[in-house]
Amino acid sequence: MSDHIVSSFDTELKGLAENLAEMGGLAEKMVGDSVSALLSRDGTLAQKVIAADKSVDQMQQRIEELAILTIARRQPMAVDLRAIVAALRVSNDLERIGDLAKNTAKRVIAIEGEFKSPKLFGGLNHMSELVLGQLKTVLDAYAERDNDRAVDVWRQDGEIDALYTSLFRELLTYMMEDPRNIGFCTHLLFCAKNIERIGDHATNIAETVHFLVTGQMLADDRPKQDNTSTTTIEFPG
Amino acid sequence: MSDHIVSSFDTELKGLAENLAEMGGLAEKMVGDSVSALLSRDGTLAQKVIAADKSVDQMQQRIEELAILTIARRQPMAVDLRAIVAALRVSNDLERIGDLAKNTAKRVIAIEGEFKSPKLFGGLNHMSELVLGQLKTVLDAYAERDNDRAVDVWRQDGEIDALYTSLFRELLTYMMEDPRNIGFCTHLLFCAKNIERIGDHATNIAETVHFLVTGQMLADDRPKQDNTSTTTIEFPG
Repeated sequence: MSDHIVSSFDTELKGLAENLAEMGGLAEKMVGDSVSALLSRDGTLAQKVIAADKSVDQMQQRIEELAILTIARRQPMAVDLRAIVAALRVSNDLERIGDLAKNTAKRVIAIEGEFKSPKLFGGLNHMSELVLGQLKTVLDAYAERDNDRAVDVWRQDGEIDALYTSLFRELLTYMMEDPRNIGFCTHLLFCAKNIERIGDHATNIAETVHFLVTGQMLADDRPKQDNTSTTTIEFPG
Repeated sequence: MSDHIVSSFDTELKGLAENLAEMGGLAEKMVGDSVSALLSRDGTLAQKVIAADKSVDQMQQRIEELAILTIARRQPMAVDLRAIVAALRVSNDLERIGDLAKNTAKRVIAIEGEFKSPKLFGGLNHMSELVLGQLKTVLDAYAERDNDRAVDVWRQDGEIDALYTSLFRELLTYMMEDPRNIGFCTHLLFCAKNIERIGDHATNIAETVHFLVTGQMLADDRPKQDNTSTTTIEFPG
């Protein structure tokens, strides 16, 4: 293979990596902003998050095109092919993360004018911090091809699921205590679910990093601690 | 290009199409079964849906591998490349549809023992029928490369969103009327959201069919009628 071809291929791979890094940065910002908008009920910030989602969608399309054309033109094998497949998968997860942040932002607008006790937000705040940390770490792990950090993220997803389960119960309790909380808390429940699912996508990215670095799949018996879909709620008293 | 190469390539494309058809059939069955399990609170059927999700995930991996290898080996151009990219996108949507059906099935198990008024299920039943119809039609449209039917599905998504919005309000009203319904109705709310999102994925598949047949993207200004994330619920009375 001539130097010329090798270097064009490297340029394409580099272009793909740069696009991914940009998309990751934007998705991360959307998540951070959607959570800030929620905690401070800031409709203006929420509108910005909603507007940003279009850019994330366009980035995914560009990455998909670039990836497919690179595969078709260069016929990469083994490790290079893996890098391109990984880029496709990560861009897919980032697009979904953007969607979830957008959905949270829309709910912020729905509840903007309502004043509710700050206690309703305590659990959400804590869970969001954890998820944002996971997302940041896994994007760094992807950029640096760092399998150890990716595996750490993968292992910690159970903690987020457990937090979500406890938050789910907590919010239902508030609804039962005072039915005037029902509409508001339902929006918070869906926001919590969005954030928990962003954590799931961070975990998917961790699996992709592992695949990229080692060529192996992580075992799919990761212990799940989100039990809310099988949780029966008793009416208290 | 020799006949030999052409025919191997055709065999690969055909293999891809067969895998997709099988995956589509399984995803459709999971959705139908999860809804039946929900409406009849049938935990045994729900368990089957949960078990089937692993197969759908494996099928997606196989399709991804096949697609990528075909691109790398055959360097297809234009219409053939489009067919492979479409297969990748559809398998992605089907995998997510399987996840959503699984989540509904898990919730069926959570509410299995509870007897509640059949009126709680009326809206869900109607919306599910519509979504199942959309999914079936769009998978047929994909198999037959039928752009007209795909565009019909795409246009009808607004109806599902509108039904979901009205169902969302209805379920919240039941929760406010009797707080003992809160836990149960929350599960139903998430089931409704799952079904609405399955409709979104059917719409994505419709867009992919359009891209596959015409080479063009459908305009992304489809009128959305799901307003629940921006719906403020007033406490009645």
